[in-house]
Order: sequence, then C-alpha cells, then structure tokens
Amino acid sequence: MLVVAPHADDETLGMGGTIARLVAEGRRVTVAVLTGHGDEPHPLWPPATWETVRAEARRAMAVLGVEDLRFAEVPAARVAEEPPWRLNRLTDELVREVAPEVLYVPFPLDLHKDHREIFHSLSVAWRPAAEHGRRVREVHCYEVVSETHWNAPYLEPGFLPTCWVDISDHLETKLRAAACYESQLEPGPAPRSLAALEALARWRGSQIGVAAAEAFVTVRLLR
Amino acid sequence: MLVVAPHADDETLGMGGTIARLVAEGRRVTVAVLTGHGDEPHPLWPPATWETVRAEARRAMAVLGVEDLRFAEVPAARVAEEPPWRLNRLTDELVREVAPEVLYVPFPLDLHKDHREIFHSLSVAWRPAAEHGRRVREVHCYEVVSETHWNAPYLEPGFLPTCWVDISDHLETKLRAAACYESQLEPGPAPRSLAALEALARWRGSQIGVAAAEAFVTVRLLR
Amino acid sequence: MLVVAPHADDETLGMGGTIARLVAEGRRVTVAVLTGHGDEPHPLWPPATWETVRAEARRAMAVLGVEDLRFAEVPAARVAEEPPWRLNRLTDELVREVAPEVLYVPFPLDLHKDHREIFHSLSVAWRPAAEHGRRVREVHCYEVVSETHWNAPYLEPGFLPTCWVDISDHLETKLRAAACYESQLEPGPAPRSLAALEALARWRGSQIGVAAAEAFVTVRLLR
Amino acid sequence: MLVVAPHADDETLGMGGTIARLVAEGRRVTVAVLTGHGDEPHPLWPPATWETVRAEARRAMAVLGVEDLRFAEVPAARVAEEPPWRLNRLTDELVREVAPEVLYVPFPLDLHKDHREIFHSLSVAWRPAAEHGRRVREVHCYEVVSETHWNAPYLEPGFLPTCWVDISDHLETKLRAAACYESQLEPGPAPRSLAALEALARWRGSQIGVAAAEAFVTVRLLR
Amino acid sequence: MLVVAPHADDETLGMGGTIARLVAEGRRVTVAVLTGHGDEPHPLWPPATWETVRAEARRAMAVLGVEDLRFAEVPAARVAEEPPWRLNRLTDELVREVAPEVLYVPFPLDLHKDHREIFHSLSVAWRPAAEHGRRVREVHCYEVVSETHWNAPYLEPGFLPTCWVDISDHLETKLRAAACYESQLEPGPAPRSLAALEALARWRGSQIGVAAAEAFVTVRLLR
Amino acid sequence: MLVVAPHADDETLGMGGTIARLVAEGRRVTVAVLTGHGDEPHPLWPPATWETVRAEARRAMAVLGVEDLRFAEVPAARVAEEPPWRLNRLTDELVREVAPEVLYVPFPLDLHKDHREIFHSLSVAWRPAAEHGRRVREVHCYEVVSETHWNAPYLEPGFLPTCWVDISDHLETKLRAAACYESQLEPGPAPRSLAALEALARWRGSQIGVAAAEAFVTVRLLR
Repeated sequence: MLVVAPHADDETLGMGGTIARLVAEGRRVTVAVLTGHGDEPHPLWPPATWETVRAEARRAMAVLGVEDLRFAEVPAARVAEEPPWRLNRLTDELVREVAPEVLYVPFPLDLHKDHREIFHSLSVAWRPAAEHGRRVREVHCYEVVSETHWNAPYLEPGFLPTCWVDISDHLETKLRAAACYESQLEPGPAPRSLAALEALARWRGSQIGVAAAEAFVTVRLLR
Repeated sequence: MLVVAPHADDETLGMGGTIARLVAEGRRVTVAVLTGHGDEPHPLWPPATWETVRAEARRAMAVLGVEDLRFAEVPAARVAEEPPWRLNRLTDELVREVAPEVLYVPFPLDLHKDHREIFHSLSVAWRPAAEHGRRVREVHCYEVVSETHWNAPYLEPGFLPTCWVDISDHLETKLRAAACYESQLEPGPAPRSLAALEALARWRGSQIGVAAAEAFVTVRLLR
Repeated sequence: MLVVAPHADDETLGMGGTIARLVAEGRRVTVAVLTGHGDEPHPLWPPATWETVRAEARRAMAVLGVEDLRFAEVPAARVAEEPPWRLNRLTDELVREVAPEVLYVPFPLDLHKDHREIFHSLSVAWRPAAEHGRRVREVHCYEVVSETHWNAPYLEPGFLPTCWVDISDHLETKLRAAACYESQLEPGPAPRSLAALEALARWRGSQIGVAAAEAFVTVRLLR
Repeated sequence: MLVVAPHADDETLGMGGTIARLVAEGRRVTVAVLTGHGDEPHPLWPPATWETVRAEARRAMAVLGVEDLRFAEVPAARVAEEPPWRLNRLTDELVREVAPEVLYVPFPLDLHKDHREIFHSLSVAWRPAAEHGRRVREVHCYEVVSETHWNAPYLEPGFLPTCWVDISDHLETKLRAAACYESQLEPGPAPRSLAALEALARWRGSQIGVAAAEAFVTVRLLR
Repeated sequence: MLVVAPHADDETLGMGGTIARLVAEGRRVTVAVLTGHGDEPHPLWPPATWETVRAEARRAMAVLGVEDLRFAEVPAARVAEEPPWRLNRLTDELVREVAPEVLYVPFPLDLHKDHREIFHSLSVAWRPAAEHGRRVREVHCYEVVSETHWNAPYLEPGFLPTCWVDISDHLETKLRAAACYESQLEPGPAPRSLAALEALARWRGSQIGVAAAEAFVTVRLLR
Repeated sequence: MLVVAPHADDETLGMGGTIARLVAEGRRVTVAVLTGHGDEPHPLWPPATWETVRAEARRAMAVLGVEDLRFAEVPAARVAEEPPWRLNRLTDELVREVAPEVLYVPFPLDLHKDHREIFHSLSVAWRPAAEHGRRVREVHCYEVVSETHWNAPYLEPGFLPTCWVDISDHLETKLRAAACYESQLEPGPAPRSLAALEALARWRGSQIGVAAAEAFVTVRLLR
C-alpha cells in the first residue's frame, strides 16, 4: 500500500485514520512525500522549513505506525514548473519500486497545482499498459481540508465520495498524528485546524452511520 | 423571504441557522411546507403522522422565530405522481402571493423525488418571463443531511457550495429547533441526527474560518 | 451478491462473465429480474412473451451457474408509470431479504426509462440510513450493449468505467449464456448481437491488458 | 428533413432562419408539432387556444415556405403524464413515416417538461438498432428563447453550441414568421419577443463572424 | 470593489456597464490590468503596443468613471510561462492591498491561457484561510465576447450565468467606453465588435426582461 | 482535409479507416505530425527513434493513400514545456497554409499532455475571429486506444462519441497501416495492439449496426 503526499501533512490530514486502521490490521504502508526544498535556493522558504516539517512528519508517522516514510525533492509550490518527463520518471520509479496493490493519491482538482500535477503524473505511472501499472489494483483519492474544496464550484469537478472508510476507532490517533504538524496547523475554526479535521470526520461518519469516517473518490478497481 | 420545504423539517435541517439569523436581523420569513397527507387515503402513513410532525414544525418555528408557517397538501412521497400543471399552479400561486425577493429551495439533485419535482416546479414559477418571477432577486438551494449527498456521485451533480452563511451565533438555536422534530430524528451517529447536523455546521464553518455555517448553491442573483 | 436486472437478459449482457467467474469462485449469486407482464393486460406484448424470455433466462442462468433467479412483475416498459412509493417498497424488500454485501445494478443513464427508475429506486433502498442499507458494502453499475451508450452524449453523463473485472476465462461462458436469449438477440453487426458482446469484452479487456473484461462504474464502497 | 416542435412556435423561434434557408436551397422540410388540446377537456386552456395558435402556425409556415405541417394531439403541458410507451409509439411512427436523414429536435434540458419528454422519446426512435433509426444521419437540438436557458445553471447541462447555421439572408424572414405568432409573443425586452430573437441571432452570428446565425447542439452524425 | 482584467479591454468588454452603474451608484471601483510588455523583449509585440492600448484604457476608464486604474507587467500571452509562486505573489499582494469586498474576475474556462492562469492564481489569493481572503465576500466571473464562448463545448464547462446585472441605463456608456479601444475592436459582425457587444447585452437583458444586462457566474458569496 | 497527430501513429490508430475511406472517395488528405526529436538533445530518446518511427509513418501513409505527410519538430513528451505563443504560431501557420475545411484533432482529455496542449493550441488557430479560422467548417476529435480512455473517469470528461464513420470496407486497410508501426505496437491483448484496434472498431461499428466504425467527438460544424 502506497500513500503519495505532495507535501508532508497531506497524508495525515487526508487519510491518517485509514492509515492507522490499515497498520492496525497488519498492512504494510509506505508514505512518499514528493516535494521538498529542492537542489537550488527556494524562492519562498529556507531549508530549515523542511527540517521542521520533516521532523513533524516523522513524529506523525510514528503515531500512525508507518515505518516506511520517504521524501523526494521536487521543489514545493513549483511542481508545475517541473518538466513533465522528469516528474513522470520520478513517479514511475516510485510505483515500480514500491509495487503497491493499492495506491492513495491526492484529488486531482485540489486547488494546489502541486496536487494536480502529481495526480496527473501518477496517472501516467499507473496506466495498465505496463506490468507495474497493472499491478496497481486500486487507486483512491483522499480529501484534504483547506485544499480539496477550494476550487471553483461547478467550474471544476468537486469531491463527491464514492468510498468511505470507517475510522471510528482511529480518529483519536489521526488527530494525535495531525497535532504533530505544529508548523502547519492553525487553531480552530480555521480551515486547517484539528477542529476542522474532527468536524469533517464526524460528518463523513454520519453519512454512513458510524462515529467517524474518511471519504475517498475511487478512480480504479481491477478485479 | 420565502423558504420552501418539501417536508416539515427540511427547512430547519437545511437552513435553521440562517432563518434564526435573518429573524434576529429583523427580516420577515415565511416557511411553506408543500406536502402533507393529501385528500385521499395515503398508502404509507395515517393522518396522525402529520398531526405529529406539524405540531413539531410549529414548535421548531417558534424556536426560530418564524411567524408565518404554511402547509400545502400535496401527498408526501407522491409529488412525482402529481400532474405537473397542478403542481406548477400551486407553486406559482405561492410565489405570487408571498412575493419574496429571496427564495430558498431544496437542492434539485437531492435523492428524494419530492425535492426534485418541487425544485423544478418552482423554477417554472421564478422564470423572469412574468412580473412575479422577476421580483425574485435571489434563489438559493439549501443542504439537507440524509438527502443532499445521497444521489449517485458523478452520475448526478453534487452539492458544491457557492454561498456560505455564518451561523456561529445561531447554531445553538438551530439545534434546539431541530430537536423539536422528535419523530424525524435519530440518535447520533445516524445521518439524520443532531450530531450530524452539528458536525456539518462546524465543517462548513471551518471552510470560511468561522465557528459554524450553512452552505448553499446559489442559482440566481438579479441586480 | 445480488444482481438486479430490469429485464431478463440485462444481467447476462451486462455482466454474464463476472457472474460466471463469481460462481466459479464459490460465491452465491442471486439474480432478480424486476419487470414482467404485470397483472393487467400489457399494451405492447402478450403474456407469452414472458414465458419465452423467462425460459431463456432459466437456461442462461443454468449456463452461468446461478441457482437463485427471481422475477418480479412490474410491467415492462412501464416502470416510469409505477408510483415511486410502490416501486421503492419492492426494491426495499428485495434488498432487505437478499441482504447482499455487493449489489450490481443497471447504469442510471441507460436510455431505457425502466433502467433509470430502477436505479433510482434501489438507491433509496441502499441508503446507509437504515441497517439493511448499510449492509450493502459495494454497488457497481454494469454496461449493457444497446442501452448504456445511447443517451445524449454530454447532455447526460456517459459510462466511464472505474472498475474492470477480468473475464478472460469466462467470456465463452458468457456468450453461451447470452445465446440462450434467442428472442432478444439479433445477428451481428447489430448492437444487440453476440458479435457486439464479444467486441466490447475484447476492447474492455485490452484496456487493462487482458483477453476479455467487463467494465463497471462503482458508486459505493464501504470499508 | 424533419423538425419536431413540442408546441407551435418552437420550430420558428428555434430555427426559423435555418428552415427558410433550407427551403430556399430546395430541401423539403416537414414540421411536426406534437402537442395540442388532446381528446379530453384540457385543465388549462380551451380548444379555441389551438385554433388560434395553429392558424398562426400555418401563416408562419407559409412565410418560411414549409408545405408539410403536421399536428399531433398529445395534451400540451401534460406530456410527462403520457405513458412512455404511448409517446414512444407516436414518435416512432413519425420517424418511420417521414424517414428523415436530418432531424431537428428541442434541447433535452429545456425547462419545459414537454420538451424533455419529447427529446427522450425521439432518442428512442432514432436508436440505430432499427433500420429507420439508422436512416437518421444527423440529429441537432435547436435553441428556444425563454425555454433553453432557464434550467438550473450547472445543476443541469447548459446549451453550448457545436453547430452554427448562417442565416444572414434569412433573419428577416424568420422574424416575419415569428411575428405570425401574435398569441405567443410579447413586446420587447421580454424573453419571448422579436427583440430577443433578433439579439440572439445577431450574437450567435457574431460568434462566427456573420450578420446572423442560429446555433445547435449536434448529438449525432453518421457518415 | 476590484475588477481584474488580464488585458486592457477585458474589463470593459466583460462588465463595462456594471462598472458604469456601480460608479453612478457611488461605489469606488479599482481596475487592475495584470499583463503588459514585461521587462524583457516580448516575442510578439513591441513596447509601443502597450503605449497605445494603455492610453485607450485610460480614455475608456474616464468614460466609465473609474479613477483607480493599475497596470502590472506580467508579459501578455505568456502568463502560463510565469512561475506560479511569482504570479501568486502578485495577485496576493493585489488582493491584500485593495482589500475588496467584491471581486470581479475573468471566467476560468476562457480560451486564453492568460485568463485561466489569472483566475487560478486569484482563487489562491481569495481562499478564506487568511484574513484578506475572508474579506472578499463576493466573487463573480464576467463574460468576454471572443474569449468566453470559444473553448471546446462540453469538453470544458461553458459560461452559464447565475447572476445578471441590469445595465439598461448604462449600455450606451459601455459602448462608448469600448469604442475607446480602437486598436482592439473590429467592425461588425466580427466577434470583437461594438455590434457583438450590443447584441449580447440585449440578449442577456431579454433573459431577465430588461433592455440590457451583463451576465456573470458567481463563485462565492459570504454572508 | 487536415489530420493533426501529436505523434506519428496517432493518426492511424485514431482514424486510419476514415483516412482510407476519404482517400478512396477522392478527397485530398494532409497529415501533420507535430512532434519530433527537436533541435536540442532529447532527454528520453535518441534521434534514431524518429528515423524509425517516421519511416514507419511513411509506410503507413502509403498504405492509407496519404501523399501529403508533414513533420514538425516540437520535442515529443515536452509540448507542455513549449511557450504557448510559439506553439500557437506553429499551429496557426499550419492551419493558414493547409486551409482545411475539415480538421481532425486529438481528444483534448487524452492522458498525454502533448495531446492536450496541441488541441488547445489548435483551438486558438480555428477561432472564427480570423478568416483562416472561419474557413474550418468542421472539427472532429478522434479516439486513440491507450490514450483517450486513460484519464480520471468523471474527474475529467470522457470520450462520448457524437459522430461515427462507417469503415467496414477500410478496417483491413487500417490494420495494415497500423501494422507498419512496429516500433509502437505490442502484441494483443495489450492496449496498443492490433487486437485492441480491431475490437474497438467492431464495437464502434456495432453501435450503429455496421461491421466496423471509427468514432469522433465533433466540436464544430459551420453551415
């Protein structure tokens, strides 16, 4: 199982409860964070930004029980500037190497261009034309507060769940993992707050009659 | 201001907070519930059902501060069986009589056929071809837990808000009004529970950085 | 596992290969055909029509290995005339009784109104508001030659598969079962021919690199 | 060439210029108006209504040069109450009899339910399953002021032209034909006025750089 | 109130009537034109091009009564080549500085990539995550002849108005302002002509029963 | 008639049968392949790659009867890196020079970014604002196995044919032409195989009751 996060925290905000549940069920989970500072000076943030957030990511993964956490170095907020062939090479190698049966990815209509480009590049990698693409039996898009619902309503497709995962027993773990991202969160009722995460999980849960859930849009099932 | 509810409780579940806020701001709000038992024996429910739910509606409206509550008698769960010309006559007369500048209606893709037909019929009434249609300067669709998000995802358009109303100061009132509908609500985490209502209001609030909000899809603004 | 077919042959045309595979894997499959002649004289076809097609259905099910084949009596080509509450009662009872974990249904945008109404009615039955709705963990829509691709392109959503089932080892069985429907099939290259069925299965197969496949649009996964 | 109009005037408002041009080019055009008073007393209008509007239609067709004008008697504003099998029989016979190579129909998302049902029924008739369906090589939907742009924006597909017909030399004829419908038109700037018709034709024309045009959504080309 | 125009003339073609009306009603309007020649030699146009068009813009703004007209220097026809982080910084500073309650922007599906990128970048700036984003209570997209209706119909969302502004008393002013853009306009019936502008305004007007209107797609209302 | 192919083989996979038929009917067909190695070293493939594939293209065109085959040199897999103004200049010159009445282009939602950018650039060239754009009376998008159906279902529009061309007499020629692309094809049942091509042609044929067909989405008809 492979979870691809454009930036450290997307994996936890989007599907920390599902990760915790899968780990509890004995599944091996790899989390790959694709962006970082990059090799050249970054126009927006100093290298220290990533030291902080990656340390937070390691703590969050420890809370969730993820042992395989990887970082790539596509410059954050600049993925759209990356030549497609180079981004495609990166995602293709990742999918070949981890060889996941189930792949979790960001929603392609998230506002952030990094999310959009990474989804597109991965969708090239999982084409069933090649052996490693056919091995990916399931692809699901997760939902990130403060990214997924901020595109232009009706002018771009919205996030309409087709898949729900019951995380009633793992919401507390998710919130604890999310709390590790001190540099990224704001106090409630801000969009990127623990309060927002909990409200969304409770609402998604109520849609299927459980205490808490995470929702996904499934884009591939092979059986 | 006119709020049209297919069934008593839709107005409160969907926009009880907004109603409370508008009343608090001194606006006059009319709530029209379009369905009831009907003149003939109803195949699903005895007349007593409506005595109960209408009494609940009156209590809920008292909580919200609505003084003008009206009931029509289109048979509930049977609106799609109603001849369109007759339903259109009813909604047309309602819009003529109340003459609202702002109209709140159910979302046309709600799962329940009663909601769908009532939206369509109202959209005939608010056509700007006639004087009373042009008087309607705003039309907004509200969001009902357990109705609005249960159609077939992507095979029918989903509810993607274009309008948010801050109800931070009125969430408590909304929940109190909703609690009047004892015959309609279930305990949490059921889809139609106070817990679901609160979670949704908190999440909608977080999307705009306030403690609680109700969301709408706006289908007309005339200026 | 429950397969709902508006008319006898939809289940085989749409997913005969998947049924054969599931049976071969030891799953118990129920096929429910919802329409028939009805209680009153049918304006289009004599009762003998159904004697013929139901006998064909029994032979087809024998080929596929389905032991539980059921017929309801909603008048064919007249489902849209059925009061929604009565159709909903029928589908609700079916879902309660069979209690499937996985439900296969027609695509809601098929040209035939019978397909549309039956999808909608079932979607009321599988709402996760009630216990029997929550038991339905998966819902998939199948693809029927000569129905699914005949609506107005782009003016109604088309069938875009999210789920593929490899039926390479079961295509021959599917075609043999389909051939039982002598009264329904035409010779190739007609839309409703064995040739069309095989071409579609080969093409769907090629999309995932296997000899033959059936495609589905998945509208619910609960996990 | 067959033009199907739900109500007399739709054919002229929607494509009077194209009809005039086709007639001028020597094509034979049949116009079929599908609704009328019906056999039973109509709840909304007396029989005289149709005497008036049909006389207007005859005058308008004389202006446009249409010699074959036909009326069916499905009750107006009540098409949705018609059993689908009966409406389908009517449209099927029409398509068999006229055997058009090119078929012009209302837009399926027009607000009026009569338009919606008639489109759907015709789409059953033009299925390429049968010989008479395959003879229909082109199907185009026309645009009617005061019907086509009044559905719920984005909650239903809008009219986005894929086909433009230059009517620069025929706009005057179109407006003259439309003026025959005295009982249906209002003075400008009402939606159903000569002023509205002319503005739309000028704007559609400007989109392709000609003095006046009519726009269509093409739903089938067979070559 | 802030109107963002990718190129000088978009603001007038798209909403010159609305601007004139708002100014007449005493509102303060800022118009920001985001593109220009840029710092480096432009591959398509010499610097004199901008001297001309900016002089025209100043004259047009004088006609409309706009006192605050600003120009940024993103190279025209090259906005898609701009690093997103740099474009985002520009639009973010603009929104912070002007602090508009109401924001008018190009339609995100306009054919021109400059329009698309500028919409996306602004949608990052108006996110309600930050204080200056939350201050933006309304966002409306305007409609530009010769840009807005030239994308691929149905393969990209079209412009379906949700908001109309009555400009009956300001159409003459709009056309006078548009006429200032001598270097940009062509004679009728070209798509970018005064004739096209007037026809569109008349048609949009007729949709709501007034002499002239401008139409918008509203993407945010906060209340 | 102009067929634009992003890469050599798209024209044959997508519409080889239609090309063969048009040639057989005496039409003059130009095929323009827009990408190649480019002037600088290509990061993915050596120049020899293009020697091979272009030789194959010449053989394929000989089979189809195309005499006018052209190659441009936009670097393959890097079209998205090309400045839009430069790509637009290339496609604009092509459309001016060939001056086609009918234009065939890739589907804008194909997975490959080269296809997407080339469609967009061409759609600028065929705008009816200029004389050479108005000369393009028809634009059709063709369907390429292994490209057209691999985007994210429902999150991007799918390929829903509006136009079918009967290639029953030309399928054999198409497959023979496709077989020339030895470097590009794989053995069946791979997505890019002769078997896949044949299955798709048979299925598209069955949709209109003929032995084989190619399907298109028509985005413009001017008449």
